[in-house]
Amino acid sequence: MLDSCRGLIAALALSMATTAAAETPNRAQLAGAVKADHAATVKRLQEWIALPTIAAEKLNVAQGAEHMRRLALDAGFQQVKIIPTAGVPGVFATLDAGARDCVGIYFMYDVKQYDPAEWTSPPLEARIVDRPGEGRAIVGRGAVNQKGPETAFLAALHAFKATGRKVPVNVVLVAEGEEEIGSPNFKQVIANPEVLPALSRCIGVFIPGAGQSSTGSASVELGAKGIVELQLIASGDKWGRGPSKDVHSSLMASVDSPAWRLVKALDTLVGDDGHTPAVAGWFEHVKPLNQRQRTLIAEAAAKDNEADVMRGLGLKKWIADEDFTTAMLRLASQPTINIQGLVSGYMGPGGKTVLPGRAEAKIDLRLVPDMTKDDAVAKLKAHLAKHGFGDIEVNVSGGYDPTQTAEDSLLIRTQKAVLDQAGIAFAVEPRMAGSWPGVVFTGLPLNLPAGGFGIGRGSGAHAPNEWYLIESSNPKIAGIDEAAMFYVDYLYEVAAEAKRGR
Amino acid sequence: MLDSCRGLIAALALSMATTAAAETPNRAQLAGAVKADHAATVKRLQEWIALPTIAAEKLNVAQGAEHMRRLALDAGFQQVKIIPTAGVPGVFATLDAGARDCVGIYFMYDVKQYDPAEWTSPPLEARIVDRPGEGRAIVGRGAVNQKGPETAFLAALHAFKATGRKVPVNVVLVAEGEEEIGSPNFKQVIANPEVLPALSRCIGVFIPGAGQSSTGSASVELGAKGIVELQLIASGDKWGRGPSKDVHSSLMASVDSPAWRLVKALDTLVGDDGHTPAVAGWFEHVKPLNQRQRTLIAEAAAKDNEADVMRGLGLKKWIADEDFTTAMLRLASQPTINIQGLVSGYMGPGGKTVLPGRAEAKIDLRLVPDMTKDDAVAKLKAHLAKHGFGDIEVNVSGGYDPTQTAEDSLLIRTQKAVLDQAGIAFAVEPRMAGSWPGVVFTGLPLNLPAGGFGIGRGSGAHAPNEWYLIESSNPKIAGIDEAAMFYVDYLYEVAAEAKRGR
Repeated sequence: MLDSCRGLIAALALSMATTAAAETPNRAQLAGAVKADHAATVKRLQEWIALPTIAAEKLNVAQGAEHMRRLALDAGFQQVKIIPTAGVPGVFATLDAGARDCVGIYFMYDVKQYDPAEWTSPPLEARIVDRPGEGRAIVGRGAVNQKGPETAFLAALHAFKATGRKVPVNVVLVAEGEEEIGSPNFKQVIANPEVLPALSRCIGVFIPGAGQSSTGSASVELGAKGIVELQLIASGDKWGRGPSKDVHSSLMASVDSPAWRLVKALDTLVGDDGHTPAVAGWFEHVKPLNQRQRTLIAEAAAKDNEADVMRGLGLKKWIADEDFTTAMLRLASQPTINIQGLVSGYMGPGGKTVLPGRAEAKIDLRLVPDMTKDDAVAKLKAHLAKHGFGDIEVNVSGGYDPTQTAEDSLLIRTQKAVLDQAGIAFAVEPRMAGSWPGVVFTGLPLNLPAGGFGIGRGSGAHAPNEWYLIESSNPKIAGIDEAAMFYVDYLYEVAAEAKRGR
Repeated sequence: MLDSCRGLIAALALSMATTAAAETPNRAQLAGAVKADHAATVKRLQEWIALPTIAAEKLNVAQGAEHMRRLALDAGFQQVKIIPTAGVPGVFATLDAGARDCVGIYFMYDVKQYDPAEWTSPPLEARIVDRPGEGRAIVGRGAVNQKGPETAFLAALHAFKATGRKVPVNVVLVAEGEEEIGSPNFKQVIANPEVLPALSRCIGVFIPGAGQSSTGSASVELGAKGIVELQLIASGDKWGRGPSKDVHSSLMASVDSPAWRLVKALDTLVGDDGHTPAVAGWFEHVKPLNQRQRTLIAEAAAKDNEADVMRGLGLKKWIADEDFTTAMLRLASQPTINIQGLVSGYMGPGGKTVLPGRAEAKIDLRLVPDMTKDDAVAKLKAHLAKHGFGDIEVNVSGGYDPTQTAEDSLLIRTQKAVLDQAGIAFAVEPRMAGSWPGVVFTGLPLNLPAGGFGIGRGSGAHAPNEWYLIESSNPKIAGIDEAAMFYVDYLYEVAAEAKRGR
């Protein structure tokens, strides 16, 4: 996913069952079907990995959408449509099981770019390799992000189809092919006059994920920060002062410097502590964590291994020498203005006597409820103008609002219930510090619960040698068949719980 | 030269003759010898260009020194020694003509790196090409910086040798092979127990140069700013806060940011105007321009074409909307703290969600008399420490003090005189805003007048297609033969003037 940052802080609160769980009828038969279909499932995943859709490169756009359409049809969706957008098309599918209730599924069918030279096996070959101590894994671009977990979900539907059993809830699938470039057109898919009413009937939406840690713990996600990615650019051209290109550095005596201008503008954005946002009104819409959120975070911090976390980050101290719990509360609760990178003038070894005509800071803003992307960008621009830096370009390259789902929503209740039923320890994460565009579901006009969900294991999203576990040697961790059966169980749980308590 | 920035502001004051000039005895015979030797001179330059010494790459270090030694011996120096240093060796040569007076010559035998792919003809082939409107030029690395002008000077000595005439003054040559990396060991050459006394007997030192503009005007240089090149580096490792590597940007909420730390530290270095140095004590040793310096600069500005200068720089306004004269006074008089480049985190297109573990600003300080490199670096470090930024690394990669020569010194008087004698308009430049390491001569222990000097024309130092004019089609501009004869005339002028007025 674009920026999900799952597993960033390993295993938060591991809470145990509180609600009763449904029983899956004919479970042995369905499990047998999943097992019988194992080779076909793996082949389905391998063929999908072999066809990478890469939105940034316009690679396999039409082919990827068509392949997604075929995958949905084969899994039992009766109606599948390709939804054109201004960019890569979406895919919309409905499986009408004649059930009372409906669950929404979000797929991404695109993948991140890759450099085959960095891989130990060809990234499109999807080889099955041994992972000592873990089992057998498939290695390929998209293996865990997100084709593997999505294939596990499709395998669940194939089991219903193979056994002639009815899926216990109706299913609406919306898939997009440009998640990796920030979902710039996904709202167009949602707004489609067939898609919107179909989704609005669902109890919520989830994206299949492989969320188990190395110890087998899973997570239930209640939300994530929003993000705005932007570049601040000072230049002689826009400023009307300083040079329009790099000139000899001796001119610094008489010529204004866009690099210094950027430094002076940046300096106004955070406080003297080097992190607290100082943009006027930045905290206006920041909703403090409630007691339940604070408790979940504090409990998770108490159970986590702070030393391991810090070692993983190459970190000696948290901000302001705060303790681990405070640092984790900050992580969930605070909006940020981060410098991703600085670019100006000469950037090679040593020095070079130039006065650069242009300087750029790459920035990301993380937003917490109830901040919005539009308001944050407007406040940033107003702040720059007020401080006399109206010439500095604010180039917004992507982003979306924060997403939040109520813990007592049916979607979350059923997720907890099925994890309990399976005996899988899990953390309830009140808010990921990372971001995903869940607001397209949780925001207007849908206002649906939404989040990632699933068991199984993998890693290496956006990195070389991305992998997803096919067969697990640890009984606490799911391979692809167990992940599929978990979704079977989950669909029954939704049907039962919805019937009981909706 | 490393950072000479000659011709930055075109043609400053063009002042005319004030002192009487000596007459060159047997000038026609010497000129005939230069002309007769033309093909050999050009071949000498071509062979030299074919052997590039590049200190940064340790390329042709021993071969370059040996070649320099042979060039000096062939030109008539009776004693030539290679002087070992901690880096690339220097070359020391003496031509004892039995004269009363002595002039010092500084050569660099190294050149800047080059990428043949960027050149229209191979950079080591030194082809002779037509330059429409200018004449015939040699194209190659080192053509103008500095092997062409140096070859012109050697051609003058060859003419004395060929005609059996005595050189009218003794000549001491010091050559270095690492000028392009900032002359890190040249003081060792000067301090050599044979070199120091030989140089101390000279009236001054000059480096041959091709200083004529497109209109034929030349310059007499009285000084140049000093320079310190350094990198300021903020890092989690040195700071003990923030990550030791790039981590996920969502962590900005709880983890200190070396990039913001660098911004906060940089912000303290210059005032709110974005250029005036704000380091404590920075102006303590700044000597204001005297009336003569101000007059020379104002006169030059009055004669220059401000619009052309600004267009060349891509500039719409000088600092603080000042007029041209004020901007030129600033250029000569003000010390600067310039950002050459900014380097941190992700620097490709768009953005990437990282919080960088390291951020670097590439800085140069320009120093005016009586500032010194050591004092400036000490003040910068003290300033950072006082503002709580003692963890920021100050990595000094090169530099030297400013250089200044008295206008009434024998070296400068004779330069003006010979230019007048030749009818060449020239500017007296009180202080170049750029820098060269002349302080090694003008400072302790030698305290000699020093500067670049010569006629002829070329361009492209450090750039592709560097060129030097061999035959000029403009009678006001010297080719290599005329440049050689100019040095012949100059050596007679030094002898006569020294005799008259020392």
